[in-house]
Amino acid sequence: MNEQPLEKYANSLGSEARQAGRKLAVTSGAQRNQALRAIATALRAQADTLMSANAKDLADAKKNKLTSAIIDRLGIDPDRVEKMARAVDEVANQPDPVNELIAGWVRPNGLRIEKRRVPIGVVAIIYEARPNVTSDAAALCIKSANACILRGGKESFHSNMAIGKVIADALVEADLPEKAVQIVDTTERALVPILLRQEGNIDLVIPRGGESLIRTVVEQSSIPVIKHYTGNCHVYVDAGCPLELAESVILNAKTQRPGVCNAAESILFHRDIARQYIPAVGRKLVDAGVEIRGCKQTQELLPDAKPATDKDYAAEYLDLIVSVKVVDSLAEAIEHINKYGSHHTDAILTHDIRAAEAFTAGVDSGNVMVNCSTRFSDGCEYGLGAEIGISTDKLHARGPMGAADLTTYKWIVAGYGHLRQ
Amino acid sequence: MNEQPLEKYANSLGSEARQAGRKLAVTSGAQRNQALRAIATALRAQADTLMSANAKDLADAKKNKLTSAIIDRLGIDPDRVEKMARAVDEVANQPDPVNELIAGWVRPNGLRIEKRRVPIGVVAIIYEARPNVTSDAAALCIKSANACILRGGKESFHSNMAIGKVIADALVEADLPEKAVQIVDTTERALVPILLRQEGNIDLVIPRGGESLIRTVVEQSSIPVIKHYTGNCHVYVDAGCPLELAESVILNAKTQRPGVCNAAESILFHRDIARQYIPAVGRKLVDAGVEIRGCKQTQELLPDAKPATDKDYAAEYLDLIVSVKVVDSLAEAIEHINKYGSHHTDAILTHDIRAAEAFTAGVDSGNVMVNCSTRFSDGCEYGLGAEIGISTDKLHARGPMGAADLTTYKWIVAGYGHLRQ
Repeated sequence: MNEQPLEKYANSLGSEARQAGRKLAVTSGAQRNQALRAIATALRAQADTLMSANAKDLADAKKNKLTSAIIDRLGIDPDRVEKMARAVDEVANQPDPVNELIAGWVRPNGLRIEKRRVPIGVVAIIYEARPNVTSDAAALCIKSANACILRGGKESFHSNMAIGKVIADALVEADLPEKAVQIVDTTERALVPILLRQEGNIDLVIPRGGESLIRTVVEQSSIPVIKHYTGNCHVYVDAGCPLELAESVILNAKTQRPGVCNAAESILFHRDIARQYIPAVGRKLVDAGVEIRGCKQTQELLPDAKPATDKDYAAEYLDLIVSVKVVDSLAEAIEHINKYGSHHTDAILTHDIRAAEAFTAGVDSGNVMVNCSTRFSDGCEYGLGAEIGISTDKLHARGPMGAADLTTYKWIVAGYGHLRQ
Repeated sequence: MNEQPLEKYANSLGSEARQAGRKLAVTSGAQRNQALRAIATALRAQADTLMSANAKDLADAKKNKLTSAIIDRLGIDPDRVEKMARAVDEVANQPDPVNELIAGWVRPNGLRIEKRRVPIGVVAIIYEARPNVTSDAAALCIKSANACILRGGKESFHSNMAIGKVIADALVEADLPEKAVQIVDTTERALVPILLRQEGNIDLVIPRGGESLIRTVVEQSSIPVIKHYTGNCHVYVDAGCPLELAESVILNAKTQRPGVCNAAESILFHRDIARQYIPAVGRKLVDAGVEIRGCKQTQELLPDAKPATDKDYAAEYLDLIVSVKVVDSLAEAIEHINKYGSHHTDAILTHDIRAAEAFTAGVDSGNVMVNCSTRFSDGCEYGLGAEIGISTDKLHARGPMGAADLTTYKWIVAGYGHLRQ
């Protein structure tokens, strides 16, 4: 395609979404839940169709020699279809965020002020690989009465189009606008920057994927972006922490699922307990297959440890590797985390209530854990229901984002003949 | 200056602000209020110093033949200094937004989840002309425990620097970091795009000024921006609205202060009452010196009316001009407002409860008024205290932004040895 048809296509995606969004905004929660249940039912009923579309993506992936990790994420089988359907059902079962009265009061002059939760309007989601993001993101947007434009990776193109067809049919069945969910039906990369300048029609962009995808989206977008960056999560072991607490939480945070954003990547030990704890905890980590990259003191205490560089302290390994550092004080731990961390999730392990308070106040991260694993940083674990991701931004939404975070608000002011003097 | 010193200066502004912000984040509300009261006291005590700095700006303005409107906005006299000081005192008297517990609950596994309001960190404000923005913005940032970088217009450079000196001294007096408020001490335009790429140090940019300033900031910034765009505010007169209500509210909305963003710029009349109301309301507007630009029907009913174009329907006149249109239905009014409006503030006048509900639900604006003047769209009128502006964005903050809107939140999760399975 040359530039002009792409421009036209982006305009059409944007304006169709805007119209659909305006209609969705005045639907009832019951009607939106009905559409979600119809989607879940149709996903189950059409599992075969989805799998045969997915087979095309898998064949392309093998032909293009993609890694086995990507091929694994890409695949759909009856179990994964059931999981997709169940996730949509769960979103239907969540409370309706739309039209919630956030606050309200009456002014001395009698004006009634209401701050009411309303949909954002149109959300564009740019993502990679896994096809279930298509149904998850669509479900959260329908729940929150937002129209969405979904632009998945080219690897899952056929799967996404098939899921999109199921969703479109279910929307029509529930008497909601078919264009409430639009799947971008071209893999043309040049479309993305054009789409990201549709600021009149698109209100929010959420990129989900690797850091370079996110940076590119931020660079190209004239629309507000909520970023889901890396998780370089820390566990700080304070002087007042028992050894067993340190061992169990660190092992869980590092090894329970090392490839995800809320896994620990760096452990800080207070100098008062370093001599005893680093060999003990280090042994357990090494036994669990973890490679340790440590500061000078760590290396002295743990012969297995390789030297850590500044790059290690800033790294999100997503692997069985961890950086370890001895700090002189709680203040140094906070400073280190604020400097090298990614402001995602950081934990303190301590019995000292004043240390816990100073840590939660001083660490500038979206999620701060006290005496528990960083792995709990998750919308489901918090009880928010399904999440669209974990925001590393500070604006609008921070940490796990549920359906309510896909809303804005509107001030409604009612009086009778009130005039400003 | 060549590029390199500007780069260095931007880095220094950003990193000093980041450090100051981290310190501010753990101060008490009492300490921040003490600093605010010290600023108010010092502004009053140093009125002469401020006025002599301002005299330099006024002399430059006259030399550069700036308009009398700009010169008027620029000027500082004892009365304006008192107003600046009083505004800072009022911010001190507001409740402290920092550390408010927004929500909290306990999970079935015993994990305690808290969603706690915290400062954003570092806010950059790019603005034009009026020197009081310097003290207002600084006060709201100190209140919300954010460090700020203030870049005012070159017209008010000497005034801003003098106000900045007063603020810095008061911060030191209250034992808060002097760099919590930094005034950019160069008028070099090339600094702005460099500053707007300090995304590691600056968390939020708020441009305040004309549309071209805001567009430029959005274009250049890799940092999230909250926009305060134009107010093309509508008043829709429904079929069920008494004539006296229409007359009084429209006159107030259009003429009480035509140069501000919440003044009405466009009036829509339902066709059922157009024949009677347009001549009556039109007469009053014309008598008040308002120029009317109307649709065909309006022109027939009101010989004074000039023809309105699409450009008129989209215009923010900020002047004694108004566009007038007859619509066939409430639905057409909503569609017109969503198409031509600026999503700032729109009002319906009606006795019909169903029309009021459909209007407030259907109009996609930050502020929707029922039976009162659009001029009430204002942080003080809502009871929010001083405002940093009226956001026309949907993300993070919409409508009047008070000190609480300069905060984000943090999830604090406490357990004891909780591990993820």
